[in-house]
Parts: sequence; C-alpha cells; structure tokens
Amino acid sequence: MPRFFVDISNIRGNQIILNDEDLSHIKVLRIRDGETFFVCDGCGTDYLCSLKGSCAAILESFPSQSEPNVKCAVFAAFPKSDKAETIIQKSVELGAYEIVFFPSSRCVSRPDTAKKLYRWQKISEAAAKQSARGIVPSVTAAASYESAIAAAAANDLPLFLYEGEETLKLSQALDYGKKYETASIVTGPEGGFSAEEAEFARQNGMSVITLGKRILRCETAPLAAISAVMFHTGNL
Amino acid sequence: MPRFFVDISNIRGNQIILNDEDLSHIKVLRIRDGETFFVCDGCGTDYLCSLKGSCAAILESFPSQSEPNVKCAVFAAFPKSDKAETIIQKSVELGAYEIVFFPSSRCVSRPDTAKKLYRWQKISEAAAKQSARGIVPSVTAAASYESAIAAAAANDLPLFLYEGEETLKLSQALDYGKKYETASIVTGPEGGFSAEEAEFARQNGMSVITLGKRILRCETAPLAAISAVMFHTGNL
Repeated sequence: MPRFFVDISNIRGNQIILNDEDLSHIKVLRIRDGETFFVCDGCGTDYLCSLKGSCAAILESFPSQSEPNVKCAVFAAFPKSDKAETIIQKSVELGAYEIVFFPSSRCVSRPDTAKKLYRWQKISEAAAKQSARGIVPSVTAAASYESAIAAAAANDLPLFLYEGEETLKLSQALDYGKKYETASIVTGPEGGFSAEEAEFARQNGMSVITLGKRILRCETAPLAAISAVMFHTGNL
Repeated sequence: MPRFFVDISNIRGNQIILNDEDLSHIKVLRIRDGETFFVCDGCGTDYLCSLKGSCAAILESFPSQSEPNVKCAVFAAFPKSDKAETIIQKSVELGAYEIVFFPSSRCVSRPDTAKKLYRWQKISEAAAKQSARGIVPSVTAAASYESAIAAAAANDLPLFLYEGEETLKLSQALDYGKKYETASIVTGPEGGFSAEEAEFARQNGMSVITLGKRILRCETAPLAAISAVMFHTGNL
C-alpha cells in the first residue's frame, strides 16, 4: 500500500493536510476518494488513512512497525561527497537513528556543511520513504572531533572502528546479557584515524574495535558495523 | 607495507616474476633493490619478498591472514549495472568467496555477460587488492535461476533473502552450535523474487528468510547479510 511522509504540523485532529507533492503523487498512483493508504509522521507513528479531497482522513493510528528497538547513531568523519551520500542512504535503509558527520585530522574533505546538510537531509528522507522507515533520521554535523566523541560516548554501546586496533573485535566488545537501547558507530575518513584520535576516543569511554583483517573503505565500514549491531540486537 | 597480486604461474621456485604494471607501481612507490613488500598469489598464500631487479625474491611464505574461515558466496539476480559493481566491490571487501549473478523473472537488466564478466572480474581484483584479501573472488554468471539455486543450496548455510517472508529471521535460521564452512546468500533484483521463485528455493533446500521490516535496496541486502554472516562466524 502507498506510504507518505507528512510534517507532524499537518496532522490536525483526525485529518491530515496533504501537500502538493503528495497530492500529485496520489494522482499518479490513481488513488481515488475513499481509497486507503498509509501516512507516516516521521516521528514513529503510522496512520491508515482514506483520501478525502485534498486531505487524508485518519482511520487508525499505531506505532511504526519498522523501527529497530535500538537507536543506532552513525558518526562518520567527513568523507568525499559521493561517499557521504552512500553512507546516508545505506545507513538509513539499515535502520540508523541519526547520522552525524564530523571533522578529523586526516579528512581530505571539509564540505561547506551549511550547503550540504539540506541536500543530505533530503537523501535521508528519500531513503526513509523507500525503505519504509517510521522516522526520517536526522543528518547533522558536529562542530569538532571532541564534541562528536562526547556525543557518541554517551550511548549504551559506543563503538569506535579503528584500523590500528588489532585484537578487540566487535563480538568481544559486546556484553551479551545487556539490552542496548542506544548505540554509536564512529568511523574515520579515507585515511583513517590517527593513533592520538583513537587514544582520545578510548580515554573518553569509546570501545575501540577492529572489524577484522580486511581493510574496509570508509563508506563500507559503517554499513558492516550497523548490520552487525542490528543483527546482534535482533533487528535483522 | 605494499602488497601485490601476481598470477600463480609467475611464481618460479623462490622467485616471482613481476609484470610491467607491478614494476611501474613499484617505481611509483620508490621501492629499491633489497627493500621488502608482500606478494599474494590470489589463491590464499602471501609471500614476504625483497626486490631483486624485475623479480621478487621470496623470503618467507605463509597462508593469507585476511581470509575469513567461512567461504561465503553471494548469488545476486542481475541488477542494473552500477548496482552490480557496488555488490561486487563491497562483497569482496566484506569477505565474499565468490559472486555469482543469475537471471530471475523480475530482472529488468539482462546484461551481455560475456562483455561484463571481464570488467566485473577487474572490479573484484581491485577490491581484493584494496582490502588486502588473500584471494581474488571469482565473478561468474549462472545460466539459469535453477542452476544458481542448485549451486547455492549445496553450501552449509544456504540463505535466500525474500521480502515476502515475514517470520523467519536470519538469527533464527542459524544453528548456533554448528560451524559453517560454506555459506550462500541469494538476493533478488530491484523488483524482488516472485512467490514461485521463493517456493522453488525453499523446496530445493534454501532457508528463506527476512532481513527485518525495512525494505532494503537490491544492492544493500547482500551487504547486510554478508556482514551479519561474517559477524556470526567470528570474522568481523
């Protein structure tokens, strides 16, 4: 059944106001008055609706069924532009709660985030629609490496992927009895993290881990890690 | 340390003949006579070598340390071209043993495999080099859907990812006591598999599973599954 995202401010009592883009999509899909479709408020609630003119009449509402039970944030050092887009699109599909880009010492790319964030948020929205997410994950930029690490370390499962780590694997960093409500995956730029950055992360409470003996590209590592976390927490 | 792949036929006793491409790469890296580097035969053995003119003198040989202990094959229905390349590149990084493309009823793309396979094998080779694999995973095309399923079903852990499956998750399809030596991940084209194709796979011994409630793109699903399999088997 078709599924639309609306801004929560357009939900008024038992009616939802549809914008021009959605109405033209509804026309393309040949949905007629009285026919049903889903509307998602992007904040975790889905609505079964029927078309009523240019509005959607709410028949039923329920928590989105597609959200993972762990809020997993992806913190990625600024990569080159196309890789940032791959990280956003795939992380959203795989169930990330939010994506945060941040500067690090070996970042080649330092995009004008003011310009980029609008486009990146649109990529998140498109991926959320396509993959039937219940939320649109936010895409933001941290002001500094230190502030990114502080935010990442506050989560229940704070993972820092480091090429220079040779022993601690993801599976060993997990406490198998624990139920994780939040997780962070911190990944480096094309050139990786410096030893000092890894040490800073460790001292600030991150679990510094290796993803095995193969060298993963900077856009592949977060996708492998989020897949493993989703698998471990029963969401895959 | 630099690392080169050579054809196994170029390994002659305790010397390895380097081709022009490798020799120019060695020049770029300013490796001089007597300096050391790694050579990989693409069949699972690595060699520590020193440069001796246009040859590499073998100092030591050992099994490649970067190969996973499970041979995981990715069977993907022909996707559009750029997606095939993403599947190859990322699967090789994540440790796939081989990649097999095959036709299915909803494939939009039916590439001229004779033309494509050469290019696809080159992508595998580049990804194997970049990620420090011990082998170059082969990229092949199956003649039919039926022959692909027969090959996939012969592996210890034969997984068939199906959007229409609502209950059986990957974690439930695993026998946690079992050590898997081989695994298969079978994934569909952009439009997914038909119910008949899923039923055929099930009847032929595949474990038909869901990857959760989010709808993954055809190039994302195999990467999520291989990440989870590598995590489960201790290779991530």
